[in-house]
Amino acid sequence: MNRQPIGVFDSGIGGLTILRSLIRSLPHEDVIYFGDTARVPYGTKSKDTVLKFSIENVELLLRHHVKLIVVACHTSSAWTLETLRQYFRVPIVGVVTPGATAAMAATHNGRIGVLGTASTIRSKAYERALRRLDRSVSVVSQSCPLLVSLAEEGWTKDAICRSVVQKYVAPVLKQRVDTLLLGCTHYPLLAPMIRRVAGRSVRVVDAGRQTARAVTEILADQGLIHQYHRRGRMTFYVSDEPERFVQVGTTFLGQRIRNVHRVSM
Amino acid sequence: MNRQPIGVFDSGIGGLTILRSLIRSLPHEDVIYFGDTARVPYGTKSKDTVLKFSIENVELLLRHHVKLIVVACHTSSAWTLETLRQYFRVPIVGVVTPGATAAMAATHNGRIGVLGTASTIRSKAYERALRRLDRSVSVVSQSCPLLVSLAEEGWTKDAICRSVVQKYVAPVLKQRVDTLLLGCTHYPLLAPMIRRVAGRSVRVVDAGRQTARAVTEILADQGLIHQYHRRGRMTFYVSDEPERFVQVGTTFLGQRIRNVHRVSM
Repeated sequence: MNRQPIGVFDSGIGGLTILRSLIRSLPHEDVIYFGDTARVPYGTKSKDTVLKFSIENVELLLRHHVKLIVVACHTSSAWTLETLRQYFRVPIVGVVTPGATAAMAATHNGRIGVLGTASTIRSKAYERALRRLDRSVSVVSQSCPLLVSLAEEGWTKDAICRSVVQKYVAPVLKQRVDTLLLGCTHYPLLAPMIRRVAGRSVRVVDAGRQTARAVTEILADQGLIHQYHRRGRMTFYVSDEPERFVQVGTTFLGQRIRNVHRVSM
Repeated sequence: MNRQPIGVFDSGIGGLTILRSLIRSLPHEDVIYFGDTARVPYGTKSKDTVLKFSIENVELLLRHHVKLIVVACHTSSAWTLETLRQYFRVPIVGVVTPGATAAMAATHNGRIGVLGTASTIRSKAYERALRRLDRSVSVVSQSCPLLVSLAEEGWTKDAICRSVVQKYVAPVLKQRVDTLLLGCTHYPLLAPMIRRVAGRSVRVVDAGRQTARAVTEILADQGLIHQYHRRGRMTFYVSDEPERFVQVGTTFLGQRIRNVHRVSM
């Protein structure tokens, strides 16, 4: 039994889709979520910059005595996970290996398409993670810069969204992938459209559920699961003002966001 | 005669469209340009955060002994110009008043549409600037979050661009505006499409040329114009790694970008 919270950080609101999976699997855990909304996005930025920001984010969460940290941002997971694990002793879970695991479980033909931000794709982290699981896998990667804006604008169902998704996904589908891995936390909001464009023969998977599973395993393993029967408390910290976070984030989390505080980085 | 450089800052690469106008008008001036590429964009962020970043940007430029500062970012101009002028003694020129002046010169019916980032539109800075010039003017404002990604992705001519522009601009045109003011430095790259969608009866104006004119006036007034006959030197500083800045920025500046240095904020 342990009452320390789980820490989650993301470049902004996207990580709320990961948090959503996490609290579904671990409803009794308290969670501290930090969204770096003053410096969002990370997906257009370099490894150095993303690492610098990520270290600061971990330090912030550690000041709240978290027992485990989830790096909910794919770009940060892709570039910084190994370094963060060298710097800090707290268990740190990223979303890249869980995403890759989910994709490997879904594919039949061993051909996987990865959609992500420019920076995540440039990192080749998904190729490496997938090849670590199965060296024979074929990976087709595609950066999709417009999808984040579409998700935040709420244009997830219209003809514009369909055209943009088609433009990004068509060349990937041509490579006969049978699985599309959503390598950015914003993309689950576009999953219905991506499924429509890709067709029934293609599986569309994200990292959420598998990340929650990885967290559960580590907590169970180390005897750190919160056994309380009340629902866990969520506390949010953001580096820009909370208004937009609350407004746009609600769709991402799937419930109202309360208890948001602003911090200066 | 004065050999101090002009300082220009922007949230990232967008301000290069302003710099382009500036060096056309003042080809002999040396310019120090700072793009805050580690913290870009400003257009989705709050006044407080944009102010904090802008003060740091001015301080950085002052360390390079600039004689005048151009705030090339519309969001920063909209939120911070007055405060920056209270804090610092160096002349500071924004893009909002020049943009408003250009729009007022273009309109015949006194009905002006303003396109900008969410944060610029929320600031109502353009309404205020336009009304200061003519109290009877009608202003229709529209935030256009997807246009920045379209410009950076280089999707400025295709059917997707056309649909997105139409979606944003159609409700503005319905209000019988005869002038569209591009209130974001990325939008000049989309001006041909915006003109196509708006039709010939609507004028599309941006702040570039008028900003250059405002700078020239202040420098002439204070005897600070650089009379050298060699071309001015441009030096660039960015807060993230220079690679993407050079690559994407070239389209914005209209010439190759050299002499880029990275600084830590």
